[in-house]
Amino acid sequence: MKYSFKNDYSELCHPELLDALLKASNEQNTGYGLDKHSDAAKELIKEKLECNHCDIHFVTGGTQANASVISHILRPYEAVLSCSTGHINVHETGAIEATGHKVYTVPGVDGKLTPSDIETALKYHQDEHMVKIGLVYISQSTEIGTVYSADELKALYDFCKVNQLYLYIDGARLSSGLAASDVEFNQLKDLCDVMYIGGTKIGMLSGEAIVIFNDRLKPYFRYHIKNKGAMLAKGYVVGIQFEAAFKDDLYFKMGKHENELSSYLSNELKKLGVSLLSESSTNQIFPIFSKEQVEQLQKLYAFEIWEPVEEDKIAIRFVTSWATSKEVCIELIEDIKALID
Amino acid sequence: MKYSFKNDYSELCHPELLDALLKASNEQNTGYGLDKHSDAAKELIKEKLECNHCDIHFVTGGTQANASVISHILRPYEAVLSCSTGHINVHETGAIEATGHKVYTVPGVDGKLTPSDIETALKYHQDEHMVKIGLVYISQSTEIGTVYSADELKALYDFCKVNQLYLYIDGARLSSGLAASDVEFNQLKDLCDVMYIGGTKIGMLSGEAIVIFNDRLKPYFRYHIKNKGAMLAKGYVVGIQFEAAFKDDLYFKMGKHENELSSYLSNELKKLGVSLLSESSTNQIFPIFSKEQVEQLQKLYAFEIWEPVEEDKIAIRFVTSWATSKEVCIELIEDIKALID
Amino acid sequence: MKYSFKNDYSELCHPELLDALLKASNEQNTGYGLDKHSDAAKELIKEKLECNHCDIHFVTGGTQANASVISHILRPYEAVLSCSTGHINVHETGAIEATGHKVYTVPGVDGKLTPSDIETALKYHQDEHMVKIGLVYISQSTEIGTVYSADELKALYDFCKVNQLYLYIDGARLSSGLAASDVEFNQLKDLCDVMYIGGTKIGMLSGEAIVIFNDRLKPYFRYHIKNKGAMLAKGYVVGIQFEAAFKDDLYFKMGKHENELSSYLSNELKKLGVSLLSESSTNQIFPIFSKEQVEQLQKLYAFEIWEPVEEDKIAIRFVTSWATSKEVCIELIEDIKALID
Amino acid sequence: MKYSFKNDYSELCHPELLDALLKASNEQNTGYGLDKHSDAAKELIKEKLECNHCDIHFVTGGTQANASVISHILRPYEAVLSCSTGHINVHETGAIEATGHKVYTVPGVDGKLTPSDIETALKYHQDEHMVKIGLVYISQSTEIGTVYSADELKALYDFCKVNQLYLYIDGARLSSGLAASDVEFNQLKDLCDVMYIGGTKIGMLSGEAIVIFNDRLKPYFRYHIKNKGAMLAKGYVVGIQFEAAFKDDLYFKMGKHENELSSYLSNELKKLGVSLLSESSTNQIFPIFSKEQVEQLQKLYAFEIWEPVEEDKIAIRFVTSWATSKEVCIELIEDIKALID
Repeated sequence: MKYSFKNDYSELCHPELLDALLKASNEQNTGYGLDKHSDAAKELIKEKLECNHCDIHFVTGGTQANASVISHILRPYEAVLSCSTGHINVHETGAIEATGHKVYTVPGVDGKLTPSDIETALKYHQDEHMVKIGLVYISQSTEIGTVYSADELKALYDFCKVNQLYLYIDGARLSSGLAASDVEFNQLKDLCDVMYIGGTKIGMLSGEAIVIFNDRLKPYFRYHIKNKGAMLAKGYVVGIQFEAAFKDDLYFKMGKHENELSSYLSNELKKLGVSLLSESSTNQIFPIFSKEQVEQLQKLYAFEIWEPVEEDKIAIRFVTSWATSKEVCIELIEDIKALID
Repeated sequence: MKYSFKNDYSELCHPELLDALLKASNEQNTGYGLDKHSDAAKELIKEKLECNHCDIHFVTGGTQANASVISHILRPYEAVLSCSTGHINVHETGAIEATGHKVYTVPGVDGKLTPSDIETALKYHQDEHMVKIGLVYISQSTEIGTVYSADELKALYDFCKVNQLYLYIDGARLSSGLAASDVEFNQLKDLCDVMYIGGTKIGMLSGEAIVIFNDRLKPYFRYHIKNKGAMLAKGYVVGIQFEAAFKDDLYFKMGKHENELSSYLSNELKKLGVSLLSESSTNQIFPIFSKEQVEQLQKLYAFEIWEPVEEDKIAIRFVTSWATSKEVCIELIEDIKALID
Repeated sequence: MKYSFKNDYSELCHPELLDALLKASNEQNTGYGLDKHSDAAKELIKEKLECNHCDIHFVTGGTQANASVISHILRPYEAVLSCSTGHINVHETGAIEATGHKVYTVPGVDGKLTPSDIETALKYHQDEHMVKIGLVYISQSTEIGTVYSADELKALYDFCKVNQLYLYIDGARLSSGLAASDVEFNQLKDLCDVMYIGGTKIGMLSGEAIVIFNDRLKPYFRYHIKNKGAMLAKGYVVGIQFEAAFKDDLYFKMGKHENELSSYLSNELKKLGVSLLSESSTNQIFPIFSKEQVEQLQKLYAFEIWEPVEEDKIAIRFVTSWATSKEVCIELIEDIKALID
Repeated sequence: MKYSFKNDYSELCHPELLDALLKASNEQNTGYGLDKHSDAAKELIKEKLECNHCDIHFVTGGTQANASVISHILRPYEAVLSCSTGHINVHETGAIEATGHKVYTVPGVDGKLTPSDIETALKYHQDEHMVKIGLVYISQSTEIGTVYSADELKALYDFCKVNQLYLYIDGARLSSGLAASDVEFNQLKDLCDVMYIGGTKIGMLSGEAIVIFNDRLKPYFRYHIKNKGAMLAKGYVVGIQFEAAFKDDLYFKMGKHENELSSYLSNELKKLGVSLLSESSTNQIFPIFSKEQVEQLQKLYAFEIWEPVEEDKIAIRFVTSWATSKEVCIELIEDIKALID
């Protein structure tokens, strides 16, 4: 097989992050995230956010981050509102419900929620015989590669504040999401109560940075992540990586790189007459091929089968990662050209 | 106000059940459901079921019964499949999720599930990144007053067994549900793994009888209901009522009475040209009136506003109970006749 | 068998409460505790408490009340502190842990906690690697029949307030507990944040009244009890009983009656040279007999074997209930006299 | 500060493990632990265990491993039995209770449980009003540095099997524990139902290997760890490290190294007349100093204050790690010698 476009966590670690780890390999560091690297990483993130008053905590995975944040925010009878395609609803094996909370879903459009979706959900839940919606969950980019604009996020968050709902942004693919949207990193402090900055899917061995902006949600969060099994003994392993990723804007460059390659692929595919399931501007694209073409492509490349589209056609998913090269993309296009000729 | 058709739990207790309680008022009985009345009630239920091998446990409410049964059956990563209108999905304030489990829903038709609905759900859940469907939840009658036929139940249960799913019937309104369908009480042992026989909505002070048919689900259920706060110190209070309700088929007569009155209402309303939201044969009916008519009716009767129907029309819900008299139904029809003339 | 001294929930219902239920048997009442009887009962309780600002909620059992209150108060990483003999620690089959919380225990003395016990527990829990003590649980009377004095309760609550801990009183046997101590019912509003007034063990079919004094704990408690399966459709059944129990101080008279009979038993036993395991002034006493004497007694009376005491001796438990008569106590003493002669 | 003896997770990663990661840095690997390195690591572990029939799963932390295993094994009403000093009881912020289960404790001796401890616990739990003990939790080495002998483990497991209890060994410090005891790694398959092989505390960036021997506990464990937020996207990061650690017995050598240094420290301290709190043969030792001496030592070294011992004396903890050198230990002894002269 030539290359896997299956996902953005197939490659170990960005060389600069690995270097940073190597440099620290003779140090002794304090445990549980109370080390100098974690501190430095937090300072760098706060600088980029232009925000001093937020609390930052490092954990190792997205499901862990989501379950920890959501169960910290909600009271037992409260539910989190999500788009039906949301990661917490579909792909976390009930991890949110395992903490005791319903994931209440609305269909949304293009994997995104609008204030009107939330309003509908609120109107539906009228009394104590139904869950109380306490929190809105969105992701940037979304499960299907779309992004919220700054205006859309602002409208959502304004609506949430008026209705006493918290807003949480799952940033598993935040780097690619920011690069594809008009949202600036330093605007995020005014666009949600909590978010997490994804590391695992953008070149780290593992690691996510939970950022709490809302003062009411800050107390005792370290107790909470320990209670949820999400506190790392060697927290500095994640700290070192975030420190390196935020030193020279590497974190943001990687997402841009991913999007450039996926844009290249989209454009070339269109030139070849290949249609795409959606207009994604992030690092996931969904071209449509015939079953036979898919089978041929599978001999050369790995990718995910997304869903059947009309008769005899299938949408597949190509994901570009921080490690994907332009060369392998050019080769992919060449191979597809040969295939459809 | 003349009368409330709001629900079937507005009246305290059927006189025969109250009599049975009075007769026992000078006794001393063993606690926690280990008394002679509970034993006798279980024997009577088993006789009517023509089933000796089932285990029966008394609890005080439907949500308690549902949460206890479902959390007993499922493993932590498993979900219960329900129609989206299901009581556990909409009206239990997240009580099932509070025990750690996702309620996965499909739309269904007329408040009911088919094998094909379950098949679709199973196909959707393919691997360990998604919950595993472990149990199918239905109710007889359903939230919207419809009933499963014996053939429908058999098809569902056959499908469940082939696919290693448990089937659980919520019988909050079982008496009315049986009276309206071709399902015989003694068939139920072959049509599900667990069910509960509702008492609260059919003339008891409170009380539901959980019946476990499947041997694998029997062990340690008493531990489980204690763990869920559902074990009653004075279990005999429920036992006495079930003993009386099953002695002379009173349990079944009350449902028939309810259905006769709701049929009378349906038929008379149709004669008056009032249309109904659905063809319900149980003790809930959903006539459609204009907003003005609804307001007039509200001066005389209590009932629930169900949902807006097209322009300026509203579906309301009338529930007949074991205590509702023919007289009050006749009067209601007279009042409606006056209203729409 | 002549009589059972096994517990105080062997008899159905006090005649005056049963009368009140009978009187309401032709009414229609609103569901879910929003009825006129529940309102009236709450008013009466507030009057007796001389407290207008508390919230009152009716549920059906002690474990339910405890699990609902404790899980409402605590954050996920918080624990409840209890005496090791506490009901929530020993006899609720893990119902508190099932809501996600550790029951942290200290030995206590005579089934009771002191400020110094709490202080020790607080000092032991220093950082986020250990649970945070959030709530202190006590009961009046305790599991072993002892009571807190008003001064003891005040000292406990003062300590809790200074240390930002909530204090919760389990009043499963509050009536007997109050009758045996110098604590007045109307003092309780200043002695804890939440309590429940037990009904099941003092003559009700079932029913406990949770009273929330602390404003911070009031919001959304109805959502919470629904979420925990503790909201009753026929809430008025409990409401009617509390209304009757608090109308003419019946609630308080029943506890006094119990204590008078248990005092009578204690005194007569001492006269006969029978020693007692503890100095209980409530409705549970623990006389010590030889194994042979216990076997003889078991032929005439039912009671619980409490624990072996030194060689060949056993402590047993006699519980007097609201329904126990002086006559049966006299007869018991006669039979014991015959036995030990 | 010269050196930290605070714990065994202050240093990033053993050079050989880091090398293995570097070698894989240009690969693409399958996600979620389904990669070739994880497979190879599992094969190596199985070879060393001389056991083909076990299932192995990699997670990132000890609390995660414990919470995942324990909640997988237990039914809702079941408790885990632990020594009161057990990590799950004291230092996991209620993570086990957060999955719904009581941690029932007995004092034990030297941080260890005996069959008689378990027997006492079983006798105490008699009926459905109390939790059911379902699982016994021990650790090798224990929280206080002691170890079980092979005979002790066999006696425990035999007792567990006869009494239908599962036995789980927490191996956070298994390498040191094995090196200090007569238990061979390949005996463990016959000495418990499940264990985890600790990586984080023995030179890995992070990573623990859960090994399930008992067939009944194998099904659906991947679903369970996903549900508990413990499934890693880049599972291969842990797989690569375990592959390297088990290739040339590095895993076992590191524990021996730790123990040699701690033995050296113990012996030299005894020669200097310093007494030790316990006879530990693993990598944690607990010397006792005067308060003044401790203060002096703190200027040069980092270590944990363990507990006050009699008047004016304090036990402290020195932990030797895979990265600790003989030289630093010699220096420590020199500095102590100077201090106490």
